[in-house]
Amino acid sequence: MKYVGYYNGTIGPLEEMTVPMLDRAVYFGDGCYDATTFANNHIFATKDHLDRFYNSCRLLEIPFDMAREELTAELQKCIDANECDHGMLYWQCSRGTALRAHNFPDAKPNLMIFTVPCELVPMNQTFRLISMEDTRFLHCNIKTLNLIPSVIAYQRCIEVGCQETVFHRGERVTECAHSNILIIRDGVLCTPPRDNLILPGITLKHLLELAEKNGIPTREAVFTMDELRNADEIIVSSSGGLCIQAVELDGQPIGGRDPQTLKKLQDAYTAFYAEDTK
Amino acid sequence: MKYVGYYNGTIGPLEEMTVPMLDRAVYFGDGCYDATTFANNHIFATKDHLDRFYNSCRLLEIPFDMAREELTAELQKCIDANECDHGMLYWQCSRGTALRAHNFPDAKPNLMIFTVPCELVPMNQTFRLISMEDTRFLHCNIKTLNLIPSVIAYQRCIEVGCQETVFHRGERVTECAHSNILIIRDGVLCTPPRDNLILPGITLKHLLELAEKNGIPTREAVFTMDELRNADEIIVSSSGGLCIQAVELDGQPIGGRDPQTLKKLQDAYTAFYAEDTK
Repeated sequence: MKYVGYYNGTIGPLEEMTVPMLDRAVYFGDGCYDATTFANNHIFATKDHLDRFYNSCRLLEIPFDMAREELTAELQKCIDANECDHGMLYWQCSRGTALRAHNFPDAKPNLMIFTVPCELVPMNQTFRLISMEDTRFLHCNIKTLNLIPSVIAYQRCIEVGCQETVFHRGERVTECAHSNILIIRDGVLCTPPRDNLILPGITLKHLLELAEKNGIPTREAVFTMDELRNADEIIVSSSGGLCIQAVELDGQPIGGRDPQTLKKLQDAYTAFYAEDTK
Repeated sequence: MKYVGYYNGTIGPLEEMTVPMLDRAVYFGDGCYDATTFANNHIFATKDHLDRFYNSCRLLEIPFDMAREELTAELQKCIDANECDHGMLYWQCSRGTALRAHNFPDAKPNLMIFTVPCELVPMNQTFRLISMEDTRFLHCNIKTLNLIPSVIAYQRCIEVGCQETVFHRGERVTECAHSNILIIRDGVLCTPPRDNLILPGITLKHLLELAEKNGIPTREAVFTMDELRNADEIIVSSSGGLCIQAVELDGQPIGGRDPQTLKKLQDAYTAFYAEDTK
């Protein structure tokens, strides 16, 4: 199988897989997910992604009770059945299958897994960004299936030949359509606060850890759109683009004033990724 | 078939129906829906619900191009195949089936329909309410599949033996978990503004029209939680509960001071519903 789909224990070619019409993911988006890359038959940063996934289930009060070891084994089964040696591994849990009614059903959560093609964005590639007011709900810390605003925001940047959309609430920068955003200012790597307005990115977490290990101080505090425009470097991070330099925002050049610190982070992440997936 | 499922032209028993794992509704909640009751083989207020449904598609930029007449015929097919003589008719449109990527796919929208059991809440039943801060996104005017906050809010009221949850943004009342909310004050029927913070309810629209026809003035303007607590009557309205009196909010009695106006509205709606579904 080129790409693999999995639903509650059944594995098959992704395009042929189906889910019940009454899975609450289908009509409420009532579930959460996580995703990471895989390479050389290894899942990248498994522990971090599982930590976040179980936390998302807990925050949504979805009683997903499969043990970590068992879930890890099911994920690995999908990677093993998948014929491409690298890609994206995605898994989600919905609140179960039941006739449509808003209150929680008397049902078991459903586990769905699939693999899709994914090439990591090369570290020497740069992104051009646009910005949009952040109109999402106030639960962005949970990796839910309610993603319409992210879909629309990403579509907007693609339509104008850019690679990501930066959300801001008023002047405060939050994150991107499906990435986190960081800045380097005076040698310090800065992230917005990891509160309910942004996803606590695993790649973001790694960047902060790798910075500290490499003598780059870090800071977690609000920064504004003006501070973003005037930062020394702007970094977009996600599971598919680990530490990507942004060079343009709404048609104006940004960053490019601390290539050394940026390069240090990119090299550190490249080495860390290779080590974890070898 | 007791309850019917439909997916892109295929009809079957609801519990046996499936959708592709790669339908964007499954992993992004990327679609919109509408729902109305049916009785005596008649769909209630078809035109109003179709108007809103096509508008939701347009606002989400989903190129759903089935003609109204054809969609109406497909909906009627499901009602005809359904063995219960009344219930809820639900239909949704997703942005299509494709490998997971945020930008819009090169795919045709998917149409899904189902019927589920629904008994209209009797007009003489009353609701007890709780309240919650409204943390939803700023696109509540679109009837999307991104419904986790509504699911959680409704679950909260059920857990404490109540029937609905009132959302408020700060002091401003918006709507309920899956209903609109109106108040009667000094003989005037008042609704919150139908802006991006609430769904433009079809039942709400009917109530305003029926009020005007019956000599009850109407008003569309912000009201606060305090004004809700002090209103003469509080009305919860949805497709499944047309004009229901709320008598308690967060454990305190509310309303009950203008039963005559309330009764006039309820009687008008009962007659209107019977006429449209006879």
